[in-house]
Amino acid sequence: MLTLYGMPDSGNCYKPRLLLAKLGRPFRHVQVNSVSGETRTAAYLAKNPNGKVPLLELDDGRRLAESNAILLHLSEGTRYLPTDAYQRALVFQWLFFEQYSHEPYIAVRRALLKYPARADQATPDRMAHLLDAGHGALGVMETQLRVSRFIAGDALTVADIALFAYTQDAAFAGYEIARFPGVTAWLDRVRADEGHVPLDWLP
Amino acid sequence: MLTLYGMPDSGNCYKPRLLLAKLGRPFRHVQVNSVSGETRTAAYLAKNPNGKVPLLELDDGRRLAESNAILLHLSEGTRYLPTDAYQRALVFQWLFFEQYSHEPYIAVRRALLKYPARADQATPDRMAHLLDAGHGALGVMETQLRVSRFIAGDALTVADIALFAYTQDAAFAGYEIARFPGVTAWLDRVRADEGHVPLDWLP
Repeated sequence: MLTLYGMPDSGNCYKPRLLLAKLGRPFRHVQVNSVSGETRTAAYLAKNPNGKVPLLELDDGRRLAESNAILLHLSEGTRYLPTDAYQRALVFQWLFFEQYSHEPYIAVRRALLKYPARADQATPDRMAHLLDAGHGALGVMETQLRVSRFIAGDALTVADIALFAYTQDAAFAGYEIARFPGVTAWLDRVRADEGHVPLDWLP
Repeated sequence: MLTLYGMPDSGNCYKPRLLLAKLGRPFRHVQVNSVSGETRTAAYLAKNPNGKVPLLELDDGRRLAESNAILLHLSEGTRYLPTDAYQRALVFQWLFFEQYSHEPYIAVRRALLKYPARADQATPDRMAHLLDAGHGALGVMETQLRVSRFIAGDALTVADIALFAYTQDAAFAGYEIARFPGVTAWLDRVRADEGHVPLDWLP
């Protein structure tokens, strides 16, 4: 059986949980708390030298890190990853957008507000920068979601799962989500898609 | 013919140029200078709403953004992307590692040192943080490159192309590259691979 190492309230860790739930694929979940340092122990670093969750362990013990790489691996051959070469490429594009232009702002601002241990890093300058850059990311999504139902086309793909993970908490993180009606409607479409489970769902 | 919009001295833009050169695939190169604001004009934002280079335009006018998505799209069916599902997944893993845990430190520190327009952002605290985090990324690569010839296994893949782009300038960016002999030997192996071209190569 698959084993997923992850933190229940992390959006990055939620991504593979949501996909596995939608696929109806059983897995074992092992809680690893990155905020309290459990990803930096020698035992964990032997599993993932980059010291991050989520981490997927396959039946045969081989491992795979990086939430979006896990999404791509698990979605191959399913309806969540297109077969057409250009459609697949657009899914890749939005997955890299998520990790480079979205998560470093929206997920980070959420974490700074959510975890008291990180409050000293939440300087006014940093919070203002994260707000501005995150609004920029939401604006890029809005431009796309005015012309397509899902982020990479007409059907929900792993790119939607990746972007949903932290966009669902954008309001909590201080973003003016009402300025982005296309994004707001898309959040509802993702939630309404078959097999959806919330952030705190565990197997 | 393919059109690539890019900046000659950007590592992210170099990635698809290096792959296209290795594939011997002809393309048209259009220079767009992101440092001087050419990626933020209305005309360019109409092509890529995220306002970044590189951007690939296919023969039929369809476009693809994100350097690593472009690498994946162009390498499908070539020796630079494995066919085995797990080997492919490792390539994905290292591509996301590059964009999340490597480029935001090493490429950013390089840019702060390279472009005078950005010198005011190079505060001592920021430069120290970028140095520490970039050394962390090089350490993760070192762990892998002590056990495999290339980052995702025995053969050079697009994950090596992506990581080579800025690692080749790590010393310029202030990193103690000599602390990472596995990485240093790998840089030489990538340079020695068939069809290699340097950063400033243009078609």
